[in-house]
Amino acid sequence: MQINQQRLRSDIESNAEFGSVPTDEGRGRTVLTGSEADRRAREFFCERLRDAGLELTIDAVGNIVGRWCPESADPDAAPVATGSHLDSVPEGGIFDGPLGVYAGLESVRAMQDAGLAPERPIDVVSFTEEEGQRFDGGLIGSAVATGDMTTDAALAIEDADGVPLGDALADIGYRGEGRLDASAWDAWIELHIEQAERLETAGVPAGVVTSVVGLSRCRVEISGEADHAGSTLMTDRSDALAAASEFVLDVERAANDRRSESETVVGTVGKLDVSPNAPNVIPGTVALTIDVRDVDRDSIAHVIDEARTSLDRLETERGVETSLEHPWDRPPVAMSDRCRDALSAAGEAADLGTLALHSGAGHDTMHVADVTDAALLFAPSRDGISHNPLEWTDWDDCADATRVLAGALAELATS
Amino acid sequence: MQINQQRLRSDIESNAEFGSVPTDEGRGRTVLTGSEADRRAREFFCERLRDAGLELTIDAVGNIVGRWCPESADPDAAPVATGSHLDSVPEGGIFDGPLGVYAGLESVRAMQDAGLAPERPIDVVSFTEEEGQRFDGGLIGSAVATGDMTTDAALAIEDADGVPLGDALADIGYRGEGRLDASAWDAWIELHIEQAERLETAGVPAGVVTSVVGLSRCRVEISGEADHAGSTLMTDRSDALAAASEFVLDVERAANDRRSESETVVGTVGKLDVSPNAPNVIPGTVALTIDVRDVDRDSIAHVIDEARTSLDRLETERGVETSLEHPWDRPPVAMSDRCRDALSAAGEAADLGTLALHSGAGHDTMHVADVTDAALLFAPSRDGISHNPLEWTDWDDCADATRVLAGALAELATS
Repeated sequence: MQINQQRLRSDIESNAEFGSVPTDEGRGRTVLTGSEADRRAREFFCERLRDAGLELTIDAVGNIVGRWCPESADPDAAPVATGSHLDSVPEGGIFDGPLGVYAGLESVRAMQDAGLAPERPIDVVSFTEEEGQRFDGGLIGSAVATGDMTTDAALAIEDADGVPLGDALADIGYRGEGRLDASAWDAWIELHIEQAERLETAGVPAGVVTSVVGLSRCRVEISGEADHAGSTLMTDRSDALAAASEFVLDVERAANDRRSESETVVGTVGKLDVSPNAPNVIPGTVALTIDVRDVDRDSIAHVIDEARTSLDRLETERGVETSLEHPWDRPPVAMSDRCRDALSAAGEAADLGTLALHSGAGHDTMHVADVTDAALLFAPSRDGISHNPLEWTDWDDCADATRVLAGALAELATS
Repeated sequence: MQINQQRLRSDIESNAEFGSVPTDEGRGRTVLTGSEADRRAREFFCERLRDAGLELTIDAVGNIVGRWCPESADPDAAPVATGSHLDSVPEGGIFDGPLGVYAGLESVRAMQDAGLAPERPIDVVSFTEEEGQRFDGGLIGSAVATGDMTTDAALAIEDADGVPLGDALADIGYRGEGRLDASAWDAWIELHIEQAERLETAGVPAGVVTSVVGLSRCRVEISGEADHAGSTLMTDRSDALAAASEFVLDVERAANDRRSESETVVGTVGKLDVSPNAPNVIPGTVALTIDVRDVDRDSIAHVIDEARTSLDRLETERGVETSLEHPWDRPPVAMSDRCRDALSAAGEAADLGTLALHSGAGHDTMHVADVTDAALLFAPSRDGISHNPLEWTDWDDCADATRVLAGALAELATS
């Protein structure tokens, strides 16, 4: 099967214009759910689905599906599905999400061009709010599609200004009807950039994921005493930022130390806000987040435990008050053998090597795997950089990974 | 001489209404230069000056002066001056600044009530932008009044949105004319809250400052690599926040270690901003400020040197890039013996003890001392808390400190 690399590239480059922003490191992409950039990205995707003759539906939380149901297919058969997401982090790259969405569409077009006659319909999907940048939590569209969250609960999630997701989607004309039901799919495969360096290092264009890491996220608050930075002696201080700095290093150390048990474990303090945040005031309060992931559930629990121990120590040693909320804890998820086998076979058929590896990111596939056979395919990321304007995947690698995806989808849809 | 405690309290409480904001710790006061709160605070102060029969002038940078020139005084004699500032940090307290302004006015009213006949005019002053919250640097009004900065340079200072100080003052009707000239004063005394616990611990209502600390301020930037928090192994990271956390602790440690040489040295990272600041992105850049103060200039230089050493180490050990700008370096300033003696004598005459101590904060007096005899008088601060809604000085202590101020001003204006 031939992949049209130029057509795929043109789609991804066109999509990159929506939310394009200048940064010190080149053009970044900021596509927050419900923004004008999101509206334009969705509109362009819908046009491209229609251009390829796919039947378009948009559900109540804005999940977009294009269905290819050729004459060869039984319209009542469980479809094979593929896709990813179009939203981004602030100043993110152009591949994280869009590659999977447009590689899914390109796979269908390649099958059409090759005159393939699948027996099942094929769905190409873009899920709403994967990144969780405007609406807390992320993976919202796939959570609804898999029954992990009700449609009403999702629509009621508010952004920092109190705007509910439902209103944000309605504002841009993408609050549709009904609920996309992922459990009705026969199988699901998502192509995504690796966001790590293993494929690049191995010189292999496609990675077949064995397991998606589990993910715990906590909100921490550390309170000291906001005082004048000049007149408060060092011995009279309760500096929330100094305490938080110890905490950040304790989380980093806990993850590093645990690598002797599970080398894939990671712990990150990505967001940290100081109050009142003035040069001449000792910080009174620091609010921060912890994000801990691994394929090994015990290692996640260990790092969270170490974080709690750190806070207890800081209360004693620095006289600060602390709190830790743990609203999100998702166990590791194994990928389907059937889908993984289809990907490996497609790699061999295309004369491309594939590498088995784990996924450190909680993609939508993590949810879909709860309700049907699911797999995740990786394309290489230059230097492993992602969530950054420097994020890059060579166009040849995009095409090669799409070739593997298309082969596996064709296999699953005809068996 | 009788101080009217109720009149002083009423002025300070009325002033506290301008910019009053609810916080977790009670009502805070946010009076940023050029804001509506600033306009109302200035308007009320001008009314109170006029009510007491003082002659009002407002200079080009918004410094407000009320002059009392009774018949006993030679209008051409160099005035004795007193005052402080009315602006605040965000969510600050009600005494930092306003106590000195209204205690100055109350001192004049007390002299009037007592029928005193000073030989010199007495000026009551409110300086513009002491805190440096909206317009960088702070102490701007006193810098202009002492010739440390030109009027034009001050008016051109821009806030974060690019609005010049001159426009901000014109917007609220407080861009006056001419330049207040502090070198024309015979002497200056500022009453301010201590913002530390020494007076409270000693049970003494008034502190006579021996020396104002020197102050260095630096801007630091630490750049790593913004990467996906899930898919980037611990070993592949360049986390700007983890590096910045080490730096915050290094600055704290440098100040603590130096206490063996000079126990008054303090070092603070008060402002720290993370970018992109998202839970699932490894921090790419951290921008922060360092504020270092002491009565001993070598100790300030030592802490700044240690900060530079820390950055060098972080570049080597963590592979981050760093920069340090050092735009502000002000040496310690000794207070005038003549003014200190007047304060001590006034304390004795009023049957109130006074304590000799240093000032950790860079009040406007630091500038005024460059051009005339100057002194700084402290009132107690409960628990040393300042720049915080919990900032508090008992009304009895306010009145006692004002009694010492008024006595010293009367002495200086009649000799």
